Amino acid sequence: MNDLFLRACKRQRVERTPVWMMRQAGRYLPEYRAIRAKADFLTMCKTPELAAEVTVQPVDIIGVDAAIIFSDILVVPEAMGLHLEMIEAKGPRFLNPVRTQDDIDALRIPDPEKNLRYVMQALETTKRILGKRVPLIGFAGSPWTLAAYMIEGSGGKEWKHTKRMMLDQPELMMALLDKLADSVRLYLEAQLAAGADAIQIFDTWGGVLTPDHYKKFSLEYIHAIVAKLHRNGQPVIVFSKGANHSLKDIADIGADVVGIDWTIDMADAKNQIGEQVALQGNLDPSYLYGSPSAIRREVKSILKKFGKGSGHVFNLGHGIFPDVPVEHARAMVDAVKEESVSFHGS
Amino acid sequence: MNDLFLRACKRQRVERTPVWMMRQAGRYLPEYRAIRAKADFLTMCKTPELAAEVTVQPVDIIGVDAAIIFSDILVVPEAMGLHLEMIEAKGPRFLNPVRTQDDIDALRIPDPEKNLRYVMQALETTKRILGKRVPLIGFAGSPWTLAAYMIEGSGGKEWKHTKRMMLDQPELMMALLDKLADSVRLYLEAQLAAGADAIQIFDTWGGVLTPDHYKKFSLEYIHAIVAKLHRNGQPVIVFSKGANHSLKDIADIGADVVGIDWTIDMADAKNQIGEQVALQGNLDPSYLYGSPSAIRREVKSILKKFGKGSGHVFNLGHGIFPDVPVEHARAMVDAVKEESVSFHGS
Repeated sequence: MNDLFLRACKRQRVERTPVWMMRQAGRYLPEYRAIRAKADFLTMCKTPELAAEVTVQPVDIIGVDAAIIFSDILVVPEAMGLHLEMIEAKGPRFLNPVRTQDDIDALRIPDPEKNLRYVMQALETTKRILGKRVPLIGFAGSPWTLAAYMIEGSGGKEWKHTKRMMLDQPELMMALLDKLADSVRLYLEAQLAAGADAIQIFDTWGGVLTPDHYKKFSLEYIHAIVAKLHRNGQPVIVFSKGANHSLKDIADIGADVVGIDWTIDMADAKNQIGEQVALQGNLDPSYLYGSPSAIRREVKSILKKFGKGSGHVFNLGHGIFPDVPVEHARAMVDAVKEESVSFHGS
Repeated sequence: MNDLFLRACKRQRVERTPVWMMRQAGRYLPEYRAIRAKADFLTMCKTPELAAEVTVQPVDIIGVDAAIIFSDILVVPEAMGLHLEMIEAKGPRFLNPVRTQDDIDALRIPDPEKNLRYVMQALETTKRILGKRVPLIGFAGSPWTLAAYMIEGSGGKEWKHTKRMMLDQPELMMALLDKLADSVRLYLEAQLAAGADAIQIFDTWGGVLTPDHYKKFSLEYIHAIVAKLHRNGQPVIVFSKGANHSLKDIADIGADVVGIDWTIDMADAKNQIGEQVALQGNLDPSYLYGSPSAIRREVKSILKKFGKGSGHVFNLGHGIFPDVPVEHARAMVDAVKEESVSFHGS
């Protein structure tokens, strides 16, 4: 197996820097859109053969060094009892948002083997198709990020109901976060059992909090998951987008890899926590709109900032946008593969 | 005059911490909505009596320690020759976005006394109505932030065309930024001549850049403005939202006050640059959805983090949201006024 990704996660020696892209199984690929034209998003998530097929596409087409299972972080709240709708061009919606103690009490902690069986089947099918090619990453949303969606009923920018609950009824918020932490941990353990070679916790909305409240309401619950997670050495990646104020705290919870967005200098991040964890990132996803030569220049800049040695998983600082040309995504992957060789070896 | 705001900007002794709110002349006020019901947004900007009336409202109703002229950063691109439309619930749109050298050449550097005369008249009218009550703040968008709107034609999250131009045609981007820097400087000087007691440069989109590109494409041009700006001691506030990675660089360009959003700890910001400049911020604007007692608790927390002494202008970390209850805005202002006394004096 091409295990560059797994070795980099553990800061073991590699011949070159491994690379994958968040949301790499996605709409920028014509082959993805061909399947998506026949099935809606949730149907794709829930049909193991379709999920497996699009999961493997970027490995074949772009040449990434890891696959990440095609799914959505919101399948967990759905399995907890919320009614999830994916509304075209508007994003996900929960028709019954969580606002009260009764709402929280009504949520169940899912049994992943029963309530999320389709994800495990997708992982198993994908492992079979992938064979020994590249590792497969499983994932889940962080408790805070899931809570924010569940309380609002959708994405947002004000996070009105979420922050109101956090300020006015912190014990209610913490009850919800506790329930989510248990649900996410069990879900991740099931993914590892189903064959995931690594897992990533996506804390997409951790960065909308003050540093104090980030630590109290987001990182604390990620910590609870990582600390209790049963695993056999599979690496854990924690990505709290925008939480650059707390890198040291994130590194301290026991993650193997810390994801960073593009608003921190890679040299600065490495300087802060590079002796302790591997780093994943951090190309601005909008840079894939630039020309292949500009993309190569920016890739080189990040590789150079990280410098010599292992412990870097190259990635975007957020998911790839749907209207990025495929050849630009490939240009990034090729640039990482070619330009990184000189930063490894003797 | 209540000059607490001006003294705090210069880190001079104050009896209590002054407070105002970004977007304080806005839709959360019923008195504002009553005027807005009769005139559209741009008409309000361009009718000095209406602009002055809503500018003064939060001084009367909420008791803030400074007024900020009611206007929009996009009046400058409009005066440069772009056609601006304010589309309800969708925000501003330029029908002819700037993408080529020809587009840039076609832009004029506005003569503020002619092309933006209505802003100067609004400032003069406001000064007359305000009398000696509180200082009046003028403002403009940063070159980078204006360029991003002008190139995209609207707000965004990918900033596709903007970042593509920045990567692939940096000399084109810099030609546009140069022209904007001249335009903004002349505009701010005219506002000072018309009676503005302080000015703020809003760099709303500086934080979407990597630290390197922020310095090169945003801060560099704010620096050019501040360095050349003719003023008689009126303080300059620079607010690059989300650019917490570069606070020291911002402080070094000669601004009197550095605005910060809520994703940095006030104690951390003060520690970094508090000996050099005053700080403005940094309550999460969503916290105004919380109860008045929670708002007071969070206000106290920030005051305590800043600690003893002058050099703090209390503000939100971004504009107040339209659906915040008026009494919550007032609760924040009252809390600052009452709780800050103990951090000043002997």
